[in-house]
Amino acid sequence: MSFGTIAILGPGLIGGSLALALAERGLAGKLVIWARKEDSFPAIREKLPQATLTTDIIEAVRTADIVVLCVPIETMKGLVEKFADALKPTALVTDVGSVKESVDREIAPLLAGKALWVGSHPMAGSEQAGFAAARANLFRGAFVILTPTNQTQKQAEQRAEEFWSLPEIGGRIVKIPPQNHDIKVAQISHLPHLLAAVLVNHVQHADSEALQLVGGGFRDTTRIASGSPELWAEILSANARAVAHALNPFIEELKTLKNNLENSTDKVVLKQRLLEKLKEAQEVRSKILKDT
Amino acid sequence: MSFGTIAILGPGLIGGSLALALAERGLAGKLVIWARKEDSFPAIREKLPQATLTTDIIEAVRTADIVVLCVPIETMKGLVEKFADALKPTALVTDVGSVKESVDREIAPLLAGKALWVGSHPMAGSEQAGFAAARANLFRGAFVILTPTNQTQKQAEQRAEEFWSLPEIGGRIVKIPPQNHDIKVAQISHLPHLLAAVLVNHVQHADSEALQLVGGGFRDTTRIASGSPELWAEILSANARAVAHALNPFIEELKTLKNNLENSTDKVVLKQRLLEKLKEAQEVRSKILKDT
Repeated sequence: MSFGTIAILGPGLIGGSLALALAERGLAGKLVIWARKEDSFPAIREKLPQATLTTDIIEAVRTADIVVLCVPIETMKGLVEKFADALKPTALVTDVGSVKESVDREIAPLLAGKALWVGSHPMAGSEQAGFAAARANLFRGAFVILTPTNQTQKQAEQRAEEFWSLPEIGGRIVKIPPQNHDIKVAQISHLPHLLAAVLVNHVQHADSEALQLVGGGFRDTTRIASGSPELWAEILSANARAVAHALNPFIEELKTLKNNLENSTDKVVLKQRLLEKLKEAQEVRSKILKDT
Repeated sequence: MSFGTIAILGPGLIGGSLALALAERGLAGKLVIWARKEDSFPAIREKLPQATLTTDIIEAVRTADIVVLCVPIETMKGLVEKFADALKPTALVTDVGSVKESVDREIAPLLAGKALWVGSHPMAGSEQAGFAAARANLFRGAFVILTPTNQTQKQAEQRAEEFWSLPEIGGRIVKIPPQNHDIKVAQISHLPHLLAAVLVNHVQHADSEALQLVGGGFRDTTRIASGSPELWAEILSANARAVAHALNPFIEELKTLKNNLENSTDKVVLKQRLLEKLKEAQEVRSKILKDT
């Protein structure tokens, strides 16, 4: 099976890693990389000498069989509006955005009758950003969530599935409707990110000197807080409702714990209560490590 | 400089690592390891053939020049009561507990006039426990917080400092009074631990299926939640007041953020507000990585 010409729009961490995965393996019949500006082209050319690099969005997509939107989610709509009419009717358009309901709501109508469309979210990343951090094996073994709706053509879904599960890319496909996707990633990705950032800022404000003493635990716990602020501000604001919904019971649980810690006159009872929670967490986490 | 006979009471992760560091380098004139039961002795004997292993606490400390308490903090008092009268008057007793105010309050009076005493907290660990997880380089480059009070003999402080900064151990000494220590570690160690555990349990309760999709971010953020529940229940309950005190403004900050996420009708304003917080966290974290 061949995917013909593949156009990657936006050669950042995710787009760049996708390009490296495809090109290193000689898969792409033709690999086209579009960027808004030429700044990144010398670095890309060095690693991907056979890719076609362009800042002309129409040229980028005109002959493409697959177009992968790897740009910030809030710029996707404007970009698709520019190129929708230039697409081959058989082309598949997909994206890599971390939020899917708003993306699908904006993009699906623009492509209706013009090309195939389904949203994708490869669950892979790094706290580093940009093409310099890209690597060919970024998606190997990672979950790629496809977010078909009842409007999605079966062919779009099938081709996206084939694309991400190519051995050169190595994704593991899961299909979840856009809104459910957003609720799930709010819990497992967006809430943890917010907590890591809030924890770093909290300690900085409470006792910045103590930060000089942190060990490996604090560093690991807050690693994701080094992620791109621009990318994450966009993700969290795009998925604001679901993140707030996830935060609510989390805050309640912290309040209960704080009251236990403050008011427990019986240390044995307090310790037993904490022990139950810590044991549950340890067990759940063992299961995660086994399953993922 | 020689430290003569060193007695390590409790060959778990910390005590075991200390024994390995000392023995591998041939430092300990005589290394005595005490454990409550003999179960662990075959494994210890294999790695430390020259150490004296005993379950007799009096025999363990009788000739020791340094005694390091590496047992759970709530068993320290009972143990010291048993052996205090058997110590050489010149012996230094120290510990490795993660909470210091309660330990110092309990142990200092028991040793007054009988031996030298100062509390220690090596800021090193692992989510794994027991002698099997011990390694000789655990303390290399780690901060070791000594917690002298105005009751502490200068000689105790000096010898503890020399001990932990031996090249074979490799600790970096910091001195902080017990209560300040507890407040600082509540922020940089105990609060992060609690958050990791609460986050794991929260997602398990909110959407256990979503846990099958977690990526490296979630795994790193919650790694410490795999730590020994018994050890951490003990630490958190022993330092309950300081942890509650640290939790309070953290919860308030989360509530503010939740309100922002829920009520912001202007996505641009919301994104800008999030961006400021995320940028601050990224900057603080870069500084941590540079400094520690």
